Order: sequence, then structure tokens, then C-alpha cells
Amino acid sequence: MLVIRSHFYEYTVGACSSLSEALKKNDRSRSHYLIDGVFAKCYASDLDKLIDPSRAVVLEACEEAKSLERLPPILLDLIRRGLNRSGNLVVIGGGVLQDIGCFIASVLARGLKWEYVPTTLLAQADSCIGSKSSINVGPFKNQIGTFHAPHRVWLVSSVLRTLASDEIRSGFGEVFKLQLLKGEADFRELCHDVNGLNLPISPSLLEKWCLRSLNVKKTYIEKDEYDRGVRNVLNYGHTFGHAFETATHYAIPHGIAVLLGIVTATFISAQRGLVTREHYLDVKKQLASWYHPFEEKLKKARLEQITEAMAHDKKNTTDGILCILTRGFGQMEKVKLNVQIDLLPTLKKFLYEEI
Amino acid sequence: MLVIRSHFYEYTVGACSSLSEALKKNDRSRSHYLIDGVFAKCYASDLDKLIDPSRAVVLEACEEAKSLERLPPILLDLIRRGLNRSGNLVVIGGGVLQDIGCFIASVLARGLKWEYVPTTLLAQADSCIGSKSSINVGPFKNQIGTFHAPHRVWLVSSVLRTLASDEIRSGFGEVFKLQLLKGEADFRELCHDVNGLNLPISPSLLEKWCLRSLNVKKTYIEKDEYDRGVRNVLNYGHTFGHAFETATHYAIPHGIAVLLGIVTATFISAQRGLVTREHYLDVKKQLASWYHPFEEKLKKARLEQITEAMAHDKKNTTDGILCILTRGFGQMEKVKLNVQIDLLPTLKKFLYEEI
Repeated sequence: MLVIRSHFYEYTVGACSSLSEALKKNDRSRSHYLIDGVFAKCYASDLDKLIDPSRAVVLEACEEAKSLERLPPILLDLIRRGLNRSGNLVVIGGGVLQDIGCFIASVLARGLKWEYVPTTLLAQADSCIGSKSSINVGPFKNQIGTFHAPHRVWLVSSVLRTLASDEIRSGFGEVFKLQLLKGEADFRELCHDVNGLNLPISPSLLEKWCLRSLNVKKTYIEKDEYDRGVRNVLNYGHTFGHAFETATHYAIPHGIAVLLGIVTATFISAQRGLVTREHYLDVKKQLASWYHPFEEKLKKARLEQITEAMAHDKKNTTDGILCILTRGFGQMEKVKLNVQIDLLPTLKKFLYEEI
Repeated sequence: MLVIRSHFYEYTVGACSSLSEALKKNDRSRSHYLIDGVFAKCYASDLDKLIDPSRAVVLEACEEAKSLERLPPILLDLIRRGLNRSGNLVVIGGGVLQDIGCFIASVLARGLKWEYVPTTLLAQADSCIGSKSSINVGPFKNQIGTFHAPHRVWLVSSVLRTLASDEIRSGFGEVFKLQLLKGEADFRELCHDVNGLNLPISPSLLEKWCLRSLNVKKTYIEKDEYDRGVRNVLNYGHTFGHAFETATHYAIPHGIAVLLGIVTATFISAQRGLVTREHYLDVKKQLASWYHPFEEKLKKARLEQITEAMAHDKKNTTDGILCILTRGFGQMEKVKLNVQIDLLPTLKKFLYEEI
């Protein structure tokens, strides 16, 4: 069990072997549920035994659902089912459900308790802690949000068995990022554990690396929950990754775009003399099998679409875009770079000559 | 100047003689503005000189505008005008604008700075401090909200001169409530200062009682910003007042409904032996001239509409509705009462025999 010392309160992340073990631990007479539609179908027989359907709202998780415009009917449904200030909202799903559920829990009755059962590897290994919600408004992605820590998180490794291979690959994007932040020994241990394995990966190995990853993230969010300083480095690989997602119209899953973003950031770091070319080639070699099936999709993206996406990134200000570069394992550094001057030539070289 | 020690940060409430004095104090190159439509028309010539119109959104303040459904276009307008995480939102208006502005400032980019120039007596004397926002969703009033303190509040007493008499009366509802919470000496001083005066009341007298009222509110919100304990007594007169507003379809302004609610609560307290009948008659006599023009509207409301509104109040739970009763000046007490059993007979007596 992991304890997160949040600015709001301490909360725990507990590992459970089954969904029923997790759901039986909350006070069902005070709980309402927000459940991912695909998960609800897949686990219908389990959920039927555990949850009173009159207290549950089932939601199709998609990027469009995560918008301020689409929230009122979800809120009305929950209020009409009796969710109020003394209630507890149990969110079961991946990152989209987490964003919606966390936001609702932070604004309904000026904030109520919520618990989270993450059902994707991305969410179990990374997003489930950290208190953030991100909601779209109109064409603006993630511009709306709150900080509101969950009261408990339950990691049920058995629910990962129904995930598609690409969802597992995507989850490993954040796992690799967090171990690169931790240091060389942990990164090597991860590569040794999982590189070359055929998917699916055993639940025990997934559970091990989820907890190890959350332990790394915990150190950053406990120091800087509101993301004003050291927590920024959790964006390693993300400035480029987000641009790759946008430029390929989300044909590359988030975690895989992050892996490609990490390789990009390491290449740029090598070009700027922060790390050796050997370090870059080493990291690239270890990550290649994970992002390999999506390389072609990135190559087909137009360079201008990538730089344009970066120019519109919310981290872009008049003095440049915040990039996390590296001086080696466990040594990340924040740099503001100008998209046209500093990044365009290097990105061009990377996309046409390196991958 | 008043300093409020909020859970978020310390912020100040400063008195200014003019709008330009208040608006010149903020960093105009980083500020965007959300301005009440009626106020914008009334003070167009002042605002034109002080505010770049490309940075301002003007909004018609009405209860319907204060809904989650109506927020996206306001947010999009502000984002397109350049408001971002490093910005400052200056809100100029009454309670509705305050609710919308505070909510937007708390969820845009996960929270940005906001300043407030309250333009009604209700807002200057009471709502401008305390960090709360309240937003409607569907038919549910004030169910959505956040806590997000302003960074500065500017009281411009000269803008109160354009308010209608009923808006001044309404503002005095909360002024009287706060002095009743403070104690007998302050309540008597207030009655001595303002009872029997013809409206308009001089700006210096309004400024005096705004600051005195905020000083009382400050003691409660500093102890219990999140409204989980002692701050509850700021609801004195509100449980009944809200029901009177609903039952009369908002024909009675908020602060006047609060005055009528205070008299009701004092009557119930007398009926329950908490205060003498003399105390009730004394308080009623002092407040009567302020709510008098709206007495008939309350008498026309149907008793069932009042009790039904109370049954739907968000403070109503299975063990009754939270009411603030009194044991005398400065001695309020929280009581849970059953609407049908405890309140219906006393309310009936009050409405048919006492007012």
C-alpha cells in the first residue's frame, strides 16, 4: 500500500486482486458510481453483483465526453440519483473517466469525496495519483480543470487482462518515463523485466511496475502538487508527445507518443551537448520495440503540423515553449526553447534521419 | 483596509473613492475583465477610459446566466481574448457576476488570479469575501461551486449611488444579520445610524457599515473558510429567507428575504423558549421598516410552497433541515428541525398572526 501525502489529505493506493475486493471496501450506502461504458459491458456480471444500478451512471469514454459542454447531463443524472455533499463518487475507468469524475467531485456541492478504480495501465501506473482533472471547452483541450485528490485509489491488476496490446504499450510509455526520471538502475531493471516479452505481461509484473512508477510520481507530487516547480519534469516527453498526437490526429496513443517524445527530447539533448550520442542511442534502442508499431504514423505527419501544434501548446509563452531535456538518467532539466529557431531544424533532422 | 487570512493566501479589501482609483491599481497588461451589463452602460464613460475593450467581456447578470450550461461561451470568449494561467480576471458587478467570475477563475487553467470590484451593497457588505462560488445546473440552484479566494477586493462606495432603493434595502438585510451576530451594542449602533433615514444613505455611512459587516464576516470565514462548522451561523435568516424567495418566485430581493427570515427565526426561537417574546418584538420593530414594502408579497405566498421549498433545500437531510436560531444578540445556535413537525405549525402562526 502506498500513502500519498496530498495538500488536501493523505490518501492511499491499495492493490486488490479483484474488483469485488476493491468495491466491497467502500461504504455502498453512501456511494454513487461513474463507470466506463466499455468496462461496464466487459465486467457486467461482476458489477451487477456489486453495485446497485440505481446509483450508477455509465458513460462512453471518449475525448468529446470530456468537455464542459457535455458535463451538465452527467451531473444532473448523478444529482437525481441522490449524489449530494455527504456522498462518495466511485469512478471506474481510464483517464477520461478520471478527468470527468475528479472534476465533478471537485465542483458538486463545492467538493465531495471520490474514490478511483483505474482500469487502464496508463491510469494505474501514472494518472491515478496527482489530484489533477483536465476538461476541454470548445476547441481548447484541457484548459479547464481542478486539483482535487481522491480519497482512495484501488489498483486491481486483474482488470488489465482485458486490455488491448496497444493499451498496454501505451501504459508502458509513462512507466518508462518515470523510471528514466528515477535513475539508471531502475531503468535497467525495467528493461530487463519487460523488454523482449510477448504481450500479455503477467499481472504480477504489471502490479510491480505500477507501484514502482507511482512511487516515483509520488516524490514529485508530494513536493509540488500544484505543478509550479519540480513537478514540471513529469512532462518529460510530453511537449513533443502532445504535438505528435495532435499532428497525427490521435492515431498514436498517448503513452506511445510520450515514448516518441522521450526519444526526441534525448536526441535534442544530445544535439545540444547535454548527453552523448551513445546515451541517446542506448535509450532509443531500449524503447524502440515499444513504439515501433507506430513509427510509420509519425513519419507520415507533416513537420509543419508538429511545429504548429507546439506553437499552440498551453505551455508556450512569449519566451518559448517549456521543454524537459536530459543530462542523463535521473537528471532532467527545464529549458525554454523557441519552436521555429531552436526546435524546427533539430526536429527535421530527427524525423527524416533518425527514426 | 481589511486583511483576510484565507486558507489560500492573505488578501485585502481596500476602500477607494472612485472606480478609476480601484482599476488603476491592477496590472492592466495582464488583466481581463468580466463586467455586469447594466453597470457597463451606466459607467460607460469611466470604463472607456480605464479598460481596453478587447480585454473585456460584458455580461447580462441574471439568475439564468449563472448556470453551468451558460458558462462555455463566456469561457471561450475570455480564452480567445487571451486570458490564460498567468492572467488576472477582474470582475466588476454584483453577486451573480461574482459567482460566475470566481467559478471561472477557479477552473480555468486549474485556477488563476482574480480581483473583485463589487457594485451592489449586498456584495460590498457581505458576499465579496469568503471564497465561495455558486452555480446552478439544470433546475438545481447553487449545486455547483468552488472555494477560490480573490486576490484583492476594492470597495468603491461611489458606485452605490446609482443603486435602486430596493437594492440598498436588500443590502441592509445582510448588514443587519451580521450585526445581530456580533452583539447588542453593534446592532443598536446600526439601528441608531440608519433607522428612520430617508434613502439614499450617504456613501460614508454605507462605507462604514460595509467595513463593519465585513469585519464580522471575517471572524467566521477565517475560522471556518470551508463552512463545516462555525461559519454555518452566517446562514442566520437564510433557510427561511431562501424559502420565501422561492415561494414568491423571487419577487422578494435576497437581503429582504433574509430580514424576513431573521424575524421568522427569532419568532421560532421565542416560541421554543430560547428568547423572550419581548426580544422578538424588539428585533422585529427595528427591522420592520426595511422589509415593510415586501410584507404583502410574503403574505400572498402559499404556506405549502414555503414548506415545499424548505423540503428541497440542500441543507435538508433525513434528520431535518439545518436552522440557525437565537438565544439573544450574538448568540446563535444550530438546530436541525423537521419541516412538517417542527416548522409547519409555527410558520403558519407567524405568517397569519404575526406579520
